[in-house]
Amino acid sequence: MPERKFQTKNICHGGDYNPEQWLDRPDILKEDIVYMKESGCNTVSLGMFSWSTLEPEEGKFQFDWLEERINTLFENGISVFLSTPSGARPKWLADKYSEVLRVDANRQRDLFGKRHNHCYTSPIYREKVWIINTELAKRFANHPAVKLWHISNEYGGECHCPLCQNAFREFLCKKYKTIEALNKAWYTVFWSHSYQSFQQIESPSPRGEDGIHALTLDWKRFVTEQTLNFYKMEVESVHAWNPSIPTTTNMMYYYEGLNYFKFKDAVDVVSWDSYPLWHKKDDYAIGIDVSMFHDIMKSVKKKPFLLMESTPSVTNWQGISKLKKPGMHELSSLQAVAHGADAVMYFQWRQSRGAFEKFHGAVIDHLGSSNTRIFKDVSKLGKLLSDFKDIAGSECRAKAAVIYDWENAWAIAEEKGPRNQGMYYKETVLKSYEALKHLGFQVDVIDMECSLDGYELVSAPMLYMFRAGMEEKLEQFTKNGGILITTYWSGVVNENDCCNLGDTPYKLSHVLGLYRSEIDALYDEEENSLVPADNNVLFLDKQYICKNLCELSEVETAEVICTYGTDFYKNSPCCTRHKYGSGWAYYIGTDAETPFYHDFYEKIIKSHGLKPDVEFAIPENVIVNVRKKDDRKFIFVQNFSSDKQEVELPKELEKHLVYGTFGSSIKEYGTLVFDI
Amino acid sequence: MPERKFQTKNICHGGDYNPEQWLDRPDILKEDIVYMKESGCNTVSLGMFSWSTLEPEEGKFQFDWLEERINTLFENGISVFLSTPSGARPKWLADKYSEVLRVDANRQRDLFGKRHNHCYTSPIYREKVWIINTELAKRFANHPAVKLWHISNEYGGECHCPLCQNAFREFLCKKYKTIEALNKAWYTVFWSHSYQSFQQIESPSPRGEDGIHALTLDWKRFVTEQTLNFYKMEVESVHAWNPSIPTTTNMMYYYEGLNYFKFKDAVDVVSWDSYPLWHKKDDYAIGIDVSMFHDIMKSVKKKPFLLMESTPSVTNWQGISKLKKPGMHELSSLQAVAHGADAVMYFQWRQSRGAFEKFHGAVIDHLGSSNTRIFKDVSKLGKLLSDFKDIAGSECRAKAAVIYDWENAWAIAEEKGPRNQGMYYKETVLKSYEALKHLGFQVDVIDMECSLDGYELVSAPMLYMFRAGMEEKLEQFTKNGGILITTYWSGVVNENDCCNLGDTPYKLSHVLGLYRSEIDALYDEEENSLVPADNNVLFLDKQYICKNLCELSEVETAEVICTYGTDFYKNSPCCTRHKYGSGWAYYIGTDAETPFYHDFYEKIIKSHGLKPDVEFAIPENVIVNVRKKDDRKFIFVQNFSSDKQEVELPKELEKHLVYGTFGSSIKEYGTLVFDI
Amino acid sequence: MPERKFQTKNICHGGDYNPEQWLDRPDILKEDIVYMKESGCNTVSLGMFSWSTLEPEEGKFQFDWLEERINTLFENGISVFLSTPSGARPKWLADKYSEVLRVDANRQRDLFGKRHNHCYTSPIYREKVWIINTELAKRFANHPAVKLWHISNEYGGECHCPLCQNAFREFLCKKYKTIEALNKAWYTVFWSHSYQSFQQIESPSPRGEDGIHALTLDWKRFVTEQTLNFYKMEVESVHAWNPSIPTTTNMMYYYEGLNYFKFKDAVDVVSWDSYPLWHKKDDYAIGIDVSMFHDIMKSVKKKPFLLMESTPSVTNWQGISKLKKPGMHELSSLQAVAHGADAVMYFQWRQSRGAFEKFHGAVIDHLGSSNTRIFKDVSKLGKLLSDFKDIAGSECRAKAAVIYDWENAWAIAEEKGPRNQGMYYKETVLKSYEALKHLGFQVDVIDMECSLDGYELVSAPMLYMFRAGMEEKLEQFTKNGGILITTYWSGVVNENDCCNLGDTPYKLSHVLGLYRSEIDALYDEEENSLVPADNNVLFLDKQYICKNLCELSEVETAEVICTYGTDFYKNSPCCTRHKYGSGWAYYIGTDAETPFYHDFYEKIIKSHGLKPDVEFAIPENVIVNVRKKDDRKFIFVQNFSSDKQEVELPKELEKHLVYGTFGSSIKEYGTLVFDI
Repeated sequence: MPERKFQTKNICHGGDYNPEQWLDRPDILKEDIVYMKESGCNTVSLGMFSWSTLEPEEGKFQFDWLEERINTLFENGISVFLSTPSGARPKWLADKYSEVLRVDANRQRDLFGKRHNHCYTSPIYREKVWIINTELAKRFANHPAVKLWHISNEYGGECHCPLCQNAFREFLCKKYKTIEALNKAWYTVFWSHSYQSFQQIESPSPRGEDGIHALTLDWKRFVTEQTLNFYKMEVESVHAWNPSIPTTTNMMYYYEGLNYFKFKDAVDVVSWDSYPLWHKKDDYAIGIDVSMFHDIMKSVKKKPFLLMESTPSVTNWQGISKLKKPGMHELSSLQAVAHGADAVMYFQWRQSRGAFEKFHGAVIDHLGSSNTRIFKDVSKLGKLLSDFKDIAGSECRAKAAVIYDWENAWAIAEEKGPRNQGMYYKETVLKSYEALKHLGFQVDVIDMECSLDGYELVSAPMLYMFRAGMEEKLEQFTKNGGILITTYWSGVVNENDCCNLGDTPYKLSHVLGLYRSEIDALYDEEENSLVPADNNVLFLDKQYICKNLCELSEVETAEVICTYGTDFYKNSPCCTRHKYGSGWAYYIGTDAETPFYHDFYEKIIKSHGLKPDVEFAIPENVIVNVRKKDDRKFIFVQNFSSDKQEVELPKELEKHLVYGTFGSSIKEYGTLVFDI
Repeated sequence: MPERKFQTKNICHGGDYNPEQWLDRPDILKEDIVYMKESGCNTVSLGMFSWSTLEPEEGKFQFDWLEERINTLFENGISVFLSTPSGARPKWLADKYSEVLRVDANRQRDLFGKRHNHCYTSPIYREKVWIINTELAKRFANHPAVKLWHISNEYGGECHCPLCQNAFREFLCKKYKTIEALNKAWYTVFWSHSYQSFQQIESPSPRGEDGIHALTLDWKRFVTEQTLNFYKMEVESVHAWNPSIPTTTNMMYYYEGLNYFKFKDAVDVVSWDSYPLWHKKDDYAIGIDVSMFHDIMKSVKKKPFLLMESTPSVTNWQGISKLKKPGMHELSSLQAVAHGADAVMYFQWRQSRGAFEKFHGAVIDHLGSSNTRIFKDVSKLGKLLSDFKDIAGSECRAKAAVIYDWENAWAIAEEKGPRNQGMYYKETVLKSYEALKHLGFQVDVIDMECSLDGYELVSAPMLYMFRAGMEEKLEQFTKNGGILITTYWSGVVNENDCCNLGDTPYKLSHVLGLYRSEIDALYDEEENSLVPADNNVLFLDKQYICKNLCELSEVETAEVICTYGTDFYKNSPCCTRHKYGSGWAYYIGTDAETPFYHDFYEKIIKSHGLKPDVEFAIPENVIVNVRKKDDRKFIFVQNFSSDKQEVELPKELEKHLVYGTFGSSIKEYGTLVFDI
Repeated sequence: MPERKFQTKNICHGGDYNPEQWLDRPDILKEDIVYMKESGCNTVSLGMFSWSTLEPEEGKFQFDWLEERINTLFENGISVFLSTPSGARPKWLADKYSEVLRVDANRQRDLFGKRHNHCYTSPIYREKVWIINTELAKRFANHPAVKLWHISNEYGGECHCPLCQNAFREFLCKKYKTIEALNKAWYTVFWSHSYQSFQQIESPSPRGEDGIHALTLDWKRFVTEQTLNFYKMEVESVHAWNPSIPTTTNMMYYYEGLNYFKFKDAVDVVSWDSYPLWHKKDDYAIGIDVSMFHDIMKSVKKKPFLLMESTPSVTNWQGISKLKKPGMHELSSLQAVAHGADAVMYFQWRQSRGAFEKFHGAVIDHLGSSNTRIFKDVSKLGKLLSDFKDIAGSECRAKAAVIYDWENAWAIAEEKGPRNQGMYYKETVLKSYEALKHLGFQVDVIDMECSLDGYELVSAPMLYMFRAGMEEKLEQFTKNGGILITTYWSGVVNENDCCNLGDTPYKLSHVLGLYRSEIDALYDEEENSLVPADNNVLFLDKQYICKNLCELSEVETAEVICTYGTDFYKNSPCCTRHKYGSGWAYYIGTDAETPFYHDFYEKIIKSHGLKPDVEFAIPENVIVNVRKKDDRKFIFVQNFSSDKQEVELPKELEKHLVYGTFGSSIKEYGTLVFDI
């Protein structure tokens, strides 16, 4: 079987295209092509919501309109990402086979409506999807325009129907072998909830079992596995007709319901849909949050990814449909490229006239003209991306990694205590990520199943759950000379949310030189502080505010860097360092504010002589990324502020500038690109 | 068939009377008559919740108690509005025929309880209502005390049962003829939701279809039609026994669920139930809002209406049961009369001892005495209304109209974007209404199906949806010399919420001399401003704040009056004027604050030499209304402030004063009435 | 049958112990005993969630592990509270007999999960509980370690299944005899909701009947009765094997769902579970609230009670798991003892490793060590309690009573008006309670069914509902020389929430010398004031703020103490006194702030020469309690502030000090104990 690497000579530019909505308007279909070329759109995603047009009655296929479109696009040099239509089924299918509709956690079956809500276990749904996919692949899998299979759309959600219950029981039976093993792993003896057989198990429900956290965790794992299994079925259906076309499925911003790292081997290229609330708060805060997700997407396969959807202007389903201010379209699109995207795609090419997304931004809106601000922005970017075609395929390598783990996020959300009104896991990870970016590092954002090999520094914040041998990996990493940063609320439970007995963090107290004794939760309005210890090893000399959680530790052999400033644990340690093997293990005991993270990482970098990827000081509000290809290096310097930003760039960079204006400042929402 | 005009020699005064609650207390029933006469109550509403007393078992009727009451009331000169009892069914009926109970949008059938919640399609319910109504009419339709049929009570809500689903499908089939026409009109191709037959259609549901906005709109239209159809059935049942008695059904304050304008031809007189939250915020703000609803009620038939319910003191089902402060009872009662009401009625005459509304205000409370503040207030008003008997039947004519359209409100609520967290349609209409009232105009508040003939000025704010040929009507109105005021977010969609292609506002860009290019939504905490253009045609010279929505327009031939003060569209136009035919078309591009509306309309009035209905300056917090009858004119000047209000009244008015104190101020909550 | 008085030589100290979670860890089970002895734990609660371990399959019992534990505990001098396991059923039971699962108010049956959610009517569940209880009792009821039956756990919730519907109908039939009597009592004529037979009645539901408040009240009474009946069945099952062991069931903090006073005769000793949010706001406010509940528990049987559960550190299911600050563990534990507790017990002895409460505080946490702050706190307290063993069994007598009535709370919650957004019944009772405690009184907190005999002062705030002959009791109490304090919103309805006609408060207006005319509700942001009348009889001379509710009264023979400071009822009376018989009746017409209550009660005490139980001035933040046994008196003086508190203690007390430091102040969270 040939390798299915997704490769593109250009950076893909284009978007979701729904010609089935305009079959009665050949003038508009014609105009589309003209506008695509005018705007530098070289790729479209086709067919993801076309099922009822492709198969208007069961078994009756109607593909000519699609072939006409694909041919016309190809003739005009526009590539196609061809979608399987499983994201939304026709009404005849749901009416005839009600098992394809989901059952919710309250055990109530959906009515027909919405989308992305099929039962992923239903044999009938799988069969019907197999049939339509087969027909599509038979007809188009060898068409030269087709570059990628866009499998389904934004998989998500869960189904609690009897078929899924049985599949879940089989999943558990395979995992635990005996019911005794499951009872023990899940701690079902609590509240007398022990099972006598796998047949007794039911999925979690607000009306039923919701107190056995290990059940909830395994259910979420099952949902990911079953969704992945559905995805693989879809891939198989289309690969039967041409195994060389790569596949993807489009992911969503920190979507809680699926552990995307599990898709690592199944997708040929990672892709995602990005809809930030630009201009809602300060754009740097939004931008760095998006950056971290781009870096997750990059880290899943450690390869370039695709920005499969973004809006050319507004996102109609959010509370406020805020226009992108001038410059933001370019900034946010190039941000994706800077982080490793080989595509900048939109939802959508042309605005629908009716229904749920008729007011979503589009390259062509209801006015139908190219004489709009949006069309001009898109066209300007199209030109730029075509200039940047060499960037396609270049990679982003990092010596620093931050761990963000889906299953850990699930466990924290379920755990019950110490702060049911907000643990802020993602926000905590983001603080380390942001500090490292600000200091000029490329950062991988990985999960606990990823290898730590090759990193010089690993930040592992709030790893409440140790799974996948995390404790051994972190110990080895440190022993072998790595710089490890851990925090409060780490190593508390095993992979089934069962508390480790003895020292916390589990098996790492000798690495850290301390163990946790208690953890105090603060009310939202409370705060404490980190006070630098006299002559501390990092030479920290400021006080910092902390909130939410204050862990109390018994220091054994660690060096104290900071202590608490108030409450009954005033003067007890809240930040320490410990030498272990050839490496160093740092510990932060409380939810410190951002300035602490900035100073803390800066001192660590200095203390251990780590070398950032970027060798100039990065100003506030600016994000810098580096992509590499062979000996070439592309540096993106982007200002996420609505004001110009002072910057001191090394003089020698000037000659490498390929985009933007070199000088002592970067304009608002401005981007500089260097090609070295 | 004789005409069924509702005519009254006096202004009706009285309220809901529930003698069935006191059949074991003849002393109290006797006392009621004494107190009614003492308080000037000349009318009561009877029977709306009496079904279980009238028909305690299926087919067993027990009417003597009601006849005794009607006779006694008549003998004492008190008229009766006789109610059909369909608003609340007996338990035996619900237990025997469960189809009379509603099914909610989640497809779950109600249990017995509450009220106003029958299935309006159920043939059995219609039959049972027909039978009880027939019996009532047979016995009482020719009784001289009975002046009006009060059909049911506060119709509302919707039912999703199988019977209603079928009726909905028939409604659609009649409207669209073919499923292809429906698919096209509803844009069902979106997300592959196309139908193959009318039988596939299901009503909207949070568990099912909620993304096809045209479905939701047609469902709401169906609910209004089916309710109206039920109402007509009830009317027919009672008219069979005396076709000369007029009918009404009591409407509710801006009730979203029913398009009340559709009842125009079916009710002989409009009536409504008013429960404002007096004293919650400043009473003028509350008062002007109530005024607008009074004017809607007046405009439905362009005739006097009835205030069917109001509270003599507190409203028990609101968050806070605030007492009416001294003066408020008179003020709010006369406000209704000022706007065209020929009745001031209360819920309720005597407080119930138990159940849901036992603490609702009543003329006689649990103390059972006439020696209460409330009884005295009611009696004082009773005397006043009897003095005002000539006002009954007089009409309120207007040369200015503001459009408030129920279906447009539905569409805006469903549309998805640009501001899902608040479009403020009603509030926007109210700003124009208030400015016109403040400038001394009588104002009609009409919907898109109403004629514009005879108006000099028409304000059509935020008409997102053009239906009923609105674009032609507005064009003609302007061309023929009318003053038209439109705003942002107008003419976007057709009557099925399908976006018009090309210029926006649809077919009016040549009338306005501009078209919309984009619309920006603001976060709640954001604002922009309207800055007057140099030498603008209206001579506006102040800046005004605007919020929520800022429309960007391409001005072609319009004159710019104001431009935006900030953001990337600073200096682009947000208020314009355009001459079209013999008229003028104004456009406001953003959600401006109230002071803008005041100044804007004042300048327009002046610019075009329009003549208000009231020729003196109306102070802050004061609302003025005029009723006319033949050559007579009744002017009501009402102070909604808790402080006295300075006023400069023309000296020549003094001799016409029939109520209140003429002078340089009006006392707190005071009313002056002139009879000219 | 022998009397079943619960007697203990020591104050019980210990907690919930779940060895079934550690049967695979004999080392830990062994260690438990060592730690129990080290920490002064002399009692454990066993078995409440052990059903699935005790009866892993239907009819197959496995008790040896439990016997081993009980034997071992006994050998080590540790007593056992043995629990019946009905609080959580095994899955096999729920799977085989679904009728044991509850049906909610929406008529949807629960899935298996959670706990405390069995159908209390189900004959099968009763049978299965009877069997397991019988087996337990047969084996252990005569074991010398077993001191008390801990029946089930935290009974609560309600079931709407068909079995419960029938039982409810029988309950109503027994109570009302005829359906006519029920219709009249419930006022079902309202909205035509009259019943023709008991068979028609359904329990209240948000989807059905929720407007007949008397139905809701009787439903809540039924739920208490049915739960109590279930409890009695459980007691009978275990007493069959040894009738001398006393029984209890653990109650919960102001738990709304059960009228705990109805358990008075059925439990041999009262017990409850206390989980205050220490440190959330000022600890005195929290402490006094807990004090009042302790005093309710004490007043149910007028005997010592047990603190059955409390946390040694955090409570994991609350929003914030706040650590107890140093001193708080001792303070809160001794507070229970001060109020009459003969036990200080914890949930839990050893932290579970998994599931819902794995992060709940425990004497032994996951670290598994005795070298923790918590273990040391517990051990220190254990020592102290053993020193205090003479206190066990001593009683708390009071000459002042405050009335807090569950059924009145239910009625206020349902009533609809005057303040649906907050009546603050409990808070109002607490204001009187706190003022009396601050003035040095022991206070009983009783319900309307309790006798008033023997009290010198009775405070009866906001007794909206008079039931159990309350009007006669209050009249007699006053006539015979008692000091009565009543407030606004008293005597409005009878026991079926049916409004009394005529004067309010019902049958007490001659006692108070006034009647209510109206009641005004204030918005949250509004306030009024109490202004002292000139030369008022209490010599009040300050103004006080009031909020929420202002009752307007017609004073007939009462003396006015205060009048309103603003609004249209300015200068009308809001606090009065009236001599009636040999006693005095005070009336407070509005929701006054705490300083008013302090001054008001102080002046009353002085005016009538009442003698407090404590003869020194109690500083702010300090709570004082007295327990008596024969001639001995134990006085507890406790500082609930995080600062030391100045205090002037009589010199002669010093020699009686048995705990704490005598001086001019009490340290933060400090306790002094005197033994006189």
